[in-house]
Amino acid sequence: MEISRENSCMIKTDDGLICIDPTLPVFSILGKKYTILILSLLGNDNTRNNFNDIANSIPGASRRIISMRLHDLENEKIIEKTKRNITEYRFTEKGYGMRRAIINLLEAILNSN
Amino acid sequence: MEISRENSCMIKTDDGLICIDPTLPVFSILGKKYTILILSLLGNDNTRNNFNDIANSIPGASRRIISMRLHDLENEKIIEKTKRNITEYRFTEKGYGMRRAIINLLEAILNSN
Repeated sequence: MEISRENSCMIKTDDGLICIDPTLPVFSILGKKYTILILSLLGNDNTRNNFNDIANSIPGASRRIISMRLHDLENEKIIEKTKRNITEYRFTEKGYGMRRAIINLLEAILNSN
Repeated sequence: MEISRENSCMIKTDDGLICIDPTLPVFSILGKKYTILILSLLGNDNTRNNFNDIANSIPGASRRIISMRLHDLENEKIIEKTKRNITEYRFTEKGYGMRRAIINLLEAILNSN
């Protein structure tokens, strides 16, 4: 089903109206297991940005799932691979903005639990 | 698999370290279809807080899914029902904090698309 963005300008904020296409792929990616954690982890003082570091930092997650998530995030241009000897991931500009908001979200969740 | 929160103090921010249990139910709820949109919609100047208003505001979503999401969010104490004549939903304090962060997340996504 094709949904125009005009149909969904439904979120009011202090800054005005936000128009959203609820079918954007980024929403389904954000919803998948571990996406929010990966986005939070990446960007930790550049200490966790290769595959092993990321995978080892999330207890209980399989390497296959982490690999799929990184691939999804790369497709959405939220993260990108660096061109060093070892494959590392870093945020795109869009990804950095998302990480800041996600950290705030985690704090809102944890402060009230 | 039981994962202790101590095992996952892995997210560094300007304010310090964030410890997260990746198995918290709130993460899987956030990931489900339309959750982020519902949380953004609710709180629009109190204009969209009964079931019909919420459901009608999300084009393409079935009423059954919206109903399930509202139930999930209520279980997690993110929203609560008001006790007026008509059933309406409002944020708990935890939910308000989450909404602010989610709005920022949407803005980060949309500004770069």
